[in-house]
Amino acid sequence: MATTVLPDLTDTSALYLSVQQFYARHMHLLDSGRAREWAGTFTPDGTFTAPGLDAPVRGRAALAAAVEQTHARLAASGETHRHWHGMVWVTPGPDGTAHVKCYGMVIAVDPAGTPRLHRHCLCEDVLTPAPAEPEGWLVASRHVTPDAAPTP
Amino acid sequence: MATTVLPDLTDTSALYLSVQQFYARHMHLLDSGRAREWAGTFTPDGTFTAPGLDAPVRGRAALAAAVEQTHARLAASGETHRHWHGMVWVTPGPDGTAHVKCYGMVIAVDPAGTPRLHRHCLCEDVLTPAPAEPEGWLVASRHVTPDAAPTP
Amino acid sequence: MATTVLPDLTDTSALYLSVQQFYARHMHLLDSGRAREWAGTFTPDGTFTAPGLDAPVRGRAALAAAVEQTHARLAASGETHRHWHGMVWVTPGPDGTAHVKCYGMVIAVDPAGTPRLHRHCLCEDVLTPAPAEPEGWLVASRHVTPDAAPTP
Repeated sequence: MATTVLPDLTDTSALYLSVQQFYARHMHLLDSGRAREWAGTFTPDGTFTAPGLDAPVRGRAALAAAVEQTHARLAASGETHRHWHGMVWVTPGPDGTAHVKCYGMVIAVDPAGTPRLHRHCLCEDVLTPAPAEPEGWLVASRHVTPDAAPTP
Repeated sequence: MATTVLPDLTDTSALYLSVQQFYARHMHLLDSGRAREWAGTFTPDGTFTAPGLDAPVRGRAALAAAVEQTHARLAASGETHRHWHGMVWVTPGPDGTAHVKCYGMVIAVDPAGTPRLHRHCLCEDVLTPAPAEPEGWLVASRHVTPDAAPTP
Repeated sequence: MATTVLPDLTDTSALYLSVQQFYARHMHLLDSGRAREWAGTFTPDGTFTAPGLDAPVRGRAALAAAVEQTHARLAASGETHRHWHGMVWVTPGPDGTAHVKCYGMVIAVDPAGTPRLHRHCLCEDVLTPAPAEPEGWLVASRHVTPDAAPTP
């Protein structure tokens, strides 16, 4: 078996790929209501910050509780939410972290199966290397900024 | 030319990349009405299963016929359909297959150019290695579950 | 450190990855109004062609001016536009270029934060290798075809 020679494929590319895989699993866990597994994709003291919150949600127990609450509310309303990440722009940090800026789209599907665009936001994550994890990453912090007005 | 050393880039990543390429071509073939070429991205006895069907659609001739029928109906209505796959979660199977769980979104564009979200579904594929194919894969089976009610 | 052996990972895959990274940055620049930086992701004589235009927009100054104009109009209306690329199908050209066929989706978010699908199009780019650029590419030409009627 010959050794592969890849002049264009840098460590940044491998980083980018593993981040994509990480988000795919992360969103399937979130949207299927596997709240504790989803919370386990954050660091133990990982934070979730959004404008509507009084303070960041911090730590896996609090993150899981927030998702369980949302999922119960959706189940009662008969709606399904699906989260998509797109235009995932990854920048390697100096300390082995990955800084991600991406778009987040929430699609809501009503009980009759009709989907609608529910929310669009900018999502900024700091990912920490975690070699024991399936894709090698955990979310250390997430800042979500819902789109409402153009950047000044 | 130096040999590239990529400690983080595993066979799983290469798998993931080729699957992404495969779906990109697959969807362009589907949406542009190249029904037989699209059916050729399934194995000869590949299956397509969805809740609305009495039985799975099986084999390339049947798959192509189904797409030709849909495309003719859309052409008559003046609508265009565009399929997006997202949050593509790939798990390597023990037998060289790739198990994919992803979201599928259908965007319908009316004759005036106004798009709307038409359908959102969960798509579960088993891909079989096919070294002679452009990206190295064929769909052995697809299960589509339209979103309608939250996961219990 | 062992040498990585990747039988499935071809130069095409590395190409595909760097193109994805390129578009992620490209769209964040566009949507945040960084018009001149966005225009800098085209070659100096890069072109943008779309059905509504009398002639292709050519060159970085003209490209930046067009984006500044759009961004000012959006700011006045209170709307935010977000561009997503998806189903990015990359074919390596014989001369080192990359030929890309992908879907483009524009999501418009009104001042109250309600998103809607604004446009869907087919985007065909020729990318030129540019080793000095962050991802190694510049857009030589872009052809945008808004979806309105099915392919005949």
